[in-house]
Amino acid sequence: MRKIAVIMGSSSDLPVVQPAADTLKRFEVPHTVHVFSAHRTPDELAKFAKSAADEGYAAFICAAGKAAALPGAVAAYTTLPVIGLPVKSSFLDGLDSLLSMVQMPSGVPVATVAVNGAENAALLAVQILAVNNSELRAKLENYKAEQREKVLKG
Amino acid sequence: MRKIAVIMGSSSDLPVVQPAADTLKRFEVPHTVHVFSAHRTPDELAKFAKSAADEGYAAFICAAGKAAALPGAVAAYTTLPVIGLPVKSSFLDGLDSLLSMVQMPSGVPVATVAVNGAENAALLAVQILAVNNSELRAKLENYKAEQREKVLKG
Amino acid sequence: MRKIAVIMGSSSDLPVVQPAADTLKRFEVPHTVHVFSAHRTPDELAKFAKSAADEGYAAFICAAGKAAALPGAVAAYTTLPVIGLPVKSSFLDGLDSLLSMVQMPSGVPVATVAVNGAENAALLAVQILAVNNSELRAKLENYKAEQREKVLKG
Amino acid sequence: MRKIAVIMGSSSDLPVVQPAADTLKRFEVPHTVHVFSAHRTPDELAKFAKSAADEGYAAFICAAGKAAALPGAVAAYTTLPVIGLPVKSSFLDGLDSLLSMVQMPSGVPVATVAVNGAENAALLAVQILAVNNSELRAKLENYKAEQREKVLKG
Amino acid sequence: MRKIAVIMGSSSDLPVVQPAADTLKRFEVPHTVHVFSAHRTPDELAKFAKSAADEGYAAFICAAGKAAALPGAVAAYTTLPVIGLPVKSSFLDGLDSLLSMVQMPSGVPVATVAVNGAENAALLAVQILAVNNSELRAKLENYKAEQREKVLKG
Amino acid sequence: MRKIAVIMGSSSDLPVVQPAADTLKRFEVPHTVHVFSAHRTPDELAKFAKSAADEGYAAFICAAGKAAALPGAVAAYTTLPVIGLPVKSSFLDGLDSLLSMVQMPSGVPVATVAVNGAENAALLAVQILAVNNSELRAKLENYKAEQREKVLKG
Amino acid sequence: MRKIAVIMGSSSDLPVVQPAADTLKRFEVPHTVHVFSAHRTPDELAKFAKSAADEGYAAFICAAGKAAALPGAVAAYTTLPVIGLPVKSSFLDGLDSLLSMVQMPSGVPVATVAVNGAENAALLAVQILAVNNSELRAKLENYKAEQREKVLKG
Amino acid sequence: MRKIAVIMGSSSDLPVVQPAADTLKRFEVPHTVHVFSAHRTPDELAKFAKSAADEGYAAFICAAGKAAALPGAVAAYTTLPVIGLPVKSSFLDGLDSLLSMVQMPSGVPVATVAVNGAENAALLAVQILAVNNSELRAKLENYKAEQREKVLKG
Repeated sequence: MRKIAVIMGSSSDLPVVQPAADTLKRFEVPHTVHVFSAHRTPDELAKFAKSAADEGYAAFICAAGKAAALPGAVAAYTTLPVIGLPVKSSFLDGLDSLLSMVQMPSGVPVATVAVNGAENAALLAVQILAVNNSELRAKLENYKAEQREKVLKG
Repeated sequence: MRKIAVIMGSSSDLPVVQPAADTLKRFEVPHTVHVFSAHRTPDELAKFAKSAADEGYAAFICAAGKAAALPGAVAAYTTLPVIGLPVKSSFLDGLDSLLSMVQMPSGVPVATVAVNGAENAALLAVQILAVNNSELRAKLENYKAEQREKVLKG
Repeated sequence: MRKIAVIMGSSSDLPVVQPAADTLKRFEVPHTVHVFSAHRTPDELAKFAKSAADEGYAAFICAAGKAAALPGAVAAYTTLPVIGLPVKSSFLDGLDSLLSMVQMPSGVPVATVAVNGAENAALLAVQILAVNNSELRAKLENYKAEQREKVLKG
Repeated sequence: MRKIAVIMGSSSDLPVVQPAADTLKRFEVPHTVHVFSAHRTPDELAKFAKSAADEGYAAFICAAGKAAALPGAVAAYTTLPVIGLPVKSSFLDGLDSLLSMVQMPSGVPVATVAVNGAENAALLAVQILAVNNSELRAKLENYKAEQREKVLKG
Repeated sequence: MRKIAVIMGSSSDLPVVQPAADTLKRFEVPHTVHVFSAHRTPDELAKFAKSAADEGYAAFICAAGKAAALPGAVAAYTTLPVIGLPVKSSFLDGLDSLLSMVQMPSGVPVATVAVNGAENAALLAVQILAVNNSELRAKLENYKAEQREKVLKG
Repeated sequence: MRKIAVIMGSSSDLPVVQPAADTLKRFEVPHTVHVFSAHRTPDELAKFAKSAADEGYAAFICAAGKAAALPGAVAAYTTLPVIGLPVKSSFLDGLDSLLSMVQMPSGVPVATVAVNGAENAALLAVQILAVNNSELRAKLENYKAEQREKVLKG
Repeated sequence: MRKIAVIMGSSSDLPVVQPAADTLKRFEVPHTVHVFSAHRTPDELAKFAKSAADEGYAAFICAAGKAAALPGAVAAYTTLPVIGLPVKSSFLDGLDSLLSMVQMPSGVPVATVAVNGAENAALLAVQILAVNNSELRAKLENYKAEQREKVLKG
Repeated sequence: MRKIAVIMGSSSDLPVVQPAADTLKRFEVPHTVHVFSAHRTPDELAKFAKSAADEGYAAFICAAGKAAALPGAVAAYTTLPVIGLPVKSSFLDGLDSLLSMVQMPSGVPVATVAVNGAENAALLAVQILAVNNSELRAKLENYKAEQREKVLKG
């Protein structure tokens, strides 16, 4: 199976991002976790994004806050799917992070999930991999069934 | 290649959704276009969403406005990736549509793109299909190169 | 007297919803409390909503947060009045919950009350039942008089 | 059947309010249309609101814009259900109207619908009357079925 | 000197309102403090507002939160100046309170100050009284000079 | 009778400000109209504001848009009441203008009215003058009665 | 004198950006105008930004809309001052553009001006150059005096 | 080297402003720290702003909250660059402060940084000084390299 790259803009985002890694682990999806900043390490980020497809990555999860340019910066260098995870900032609960991610110009999509929605970012990555992996889809179906059970048990 | 289901909540959303269909066509990605409403045809929507994986669909693009429940309603019934396309409403330029899509609860992701970002919704769908389709990826790379040329030519 | 169905999207919403149940109890209005999720248990929710009128329910109170599709999902399956109670989320104090409920498309109304306004959701349900129940209206009048007294006593 | 009182804060709101009256007419629900202002005719409004229950009214639809105090002012004087219809203002598409209606204090609910959602305001009124009127409920079910047909025919 | 009426919508607003009373006291401006609710004690509020001019009041300070109809309700019954003091609510830091006060329709002004700006509400009342009271203006000038000194001393 | 100073930040604000002058004229309140900018003519503005009380002015109406510093700049130099009239800008319908006026720091109040609420700005000025002018109050009462008549005549 | 680089994210932004170039011309400040996209031509943008200091540039003006990553992307590659000019988008009048620019993380400033504030972006660039150029400062003083005259002449 | 003037509107802003002074110190940039209020000490502020260029200042950093008129008031009196630092207020996380600074009218720019972005305000001041100071630019390059290292070390 191809890998998922989980990138956060700052190591301080780790508590928000951790559930994404945990979810990928739960689904036994290979992944690596990185700290790259669109504004502080643009060259390293560009290099990683450009070579990711050849390195066996299938998709990115990019977490960032405030003027959250990270997922867009990755999307500028790749045609792999880029999932944007807006991190709750100290300004309007992350409205800045959300708009900086979701309002991408035509031609360069970022698949944005909820503010601090790390689990969903990971599930979306798993769903993308599962498009051609029936075993993984079965796991997603099981997960969905478990969620249902949890709600019904109250 | 598996298909993309393009669903809009109302036929009045067609002008916003059309660029998504056009983009899929440009990439020669098989797709079907539907009008289903989460609130007016919930049973038909549920039936379609539940059987889509078996019918050969790989992902959904769901366009809706205002209390835009459509992509979430589809995601409730499938583990295929669901792309949410918020339609600009008459209230705060579609802030209602955007928040109703992107702020999904844990466990049920919707990959949200920009308000009225139909082309990006389609590109994201193509990127998802291209994860296991090198020919499609090549087309995406070409497209990206063309975009670059257009900007450089001013 | 017909019953009120109080539904919350997640058991974690109970502290917000409890005042609704307490108020219904105070007015001796029969009611049942449920946990159904529009996104995690859509089939169970649909089944409940469809049969509620026949089961003796007169109206729904639906509490949910974020992309709060619950009341709309119920309203999709019933012609009974659906009262939407937006739960304060961690994003903009529940602006997402509020807009996801109140901005319903034409044809499918949700009677929305204030964010975390559980008591008012219940009072609205009582008012609806009281339209044809003079005893219940008398209780509402008493309640209104008590409120007045409380304010005047400072 | 008891009547619905449709009140608007200014005669200039009539174009927004008209679909409410049209919808009530379609359902053959008796109703009267009034112009009362919470700020300009408070005494007349209070008098009307206080006596409405005795005059055979079952519920109110109150349309207003900006600092939209009208439905709350009515709710202050009655225990009948009050439906608030926020009129789109020239400021933030009626966010002021919406918040001034929906954010009512505990004890005095206003059942708020979407900005300019006149049809839904009327449908909610019909649903309230239909709680004890099976013929009216049948009409609502027909209406719902028609809506479904319209969507399915695209 | 004529009096200032300080009215709050709920006794729970007292901590926010207290600085207004303190400031009036500091300027030796006669004033009375009341709890009246636009929604719970509309008749008492109307009566007070109507007779205030004859009772020797010169202006009102009205503090309220959420759907803050209080100052507008007073302004509906008087031609004395009404100062609106929006109380910080649990929703968007009182954006609801602010818009419900400041966005009054033509003909019925409310002089709105900052959210929780009780001292300024009182100063505005003092300024209004000082228009025809040179002694009071002198006190305001002294106050202004003191403020200046405080800032310059850092 | 003392005069009202009507100041606008730019001559382009005149269409918004005109109803204020018209209303003052209707009430036969002496007034002068000025163009001063807090940012472009700060010295002239300061000079005018400082001497206004001695020149026979009783209050200011200050209209400005965007980073609408004008009323605050006047209030910095006077203890006369300053009425702030936020002009609708091209950004969020004047939310910038409104917040820049109403959110004044403690000690320096600005009596803010609705965005583009020029008539109310003038009425507030008249109300302030009428605190000690029974003839003017009588005119205000007449005006209020006329408003009432207009609404009742529909 | 060193040059100013004016960069826009898309040639469609030219009408908004033109006043910046006109203003630089008026001050006889050498400048060049470019179209580079942070998302479509990231390599060309990076190359330009990296070499700008050596090519004789003193500062950047970067205009972009929506998820306006352009000024931040430039700031990632240079230590020259970067002025951000948010372009009014079709979403909330450019609130997305504004927040995507101004909310930069610590270490990488963007000097943001008003939405569509092209003239001010240019003036800021001139002010920066004038820090060490007394002739240019004299021109700025003249310009300021002219502005003052214009306002005073009404 | 010319000096930077750091001005805050109230001594209570010091905790927010301190990182700006610390950063200037780190770069060995001469600076002075002041408390001046646009609304409480307008004359002192005007005097300081007018004479700053002659006193050897190169630029201003102005921190203020709420109706944050400070940087604009300085910019009204100088042609030196004015950097605006919006202080997080108790209302919408400082949206009021931000809009009051950034939305300046044409002709009077304020270079606005993020809410509470004191370090960036200082870096921008250093960048401005470094336009003609290669030693200072070298320090900025070192700083940028250090930032990069920190991110890469995680």
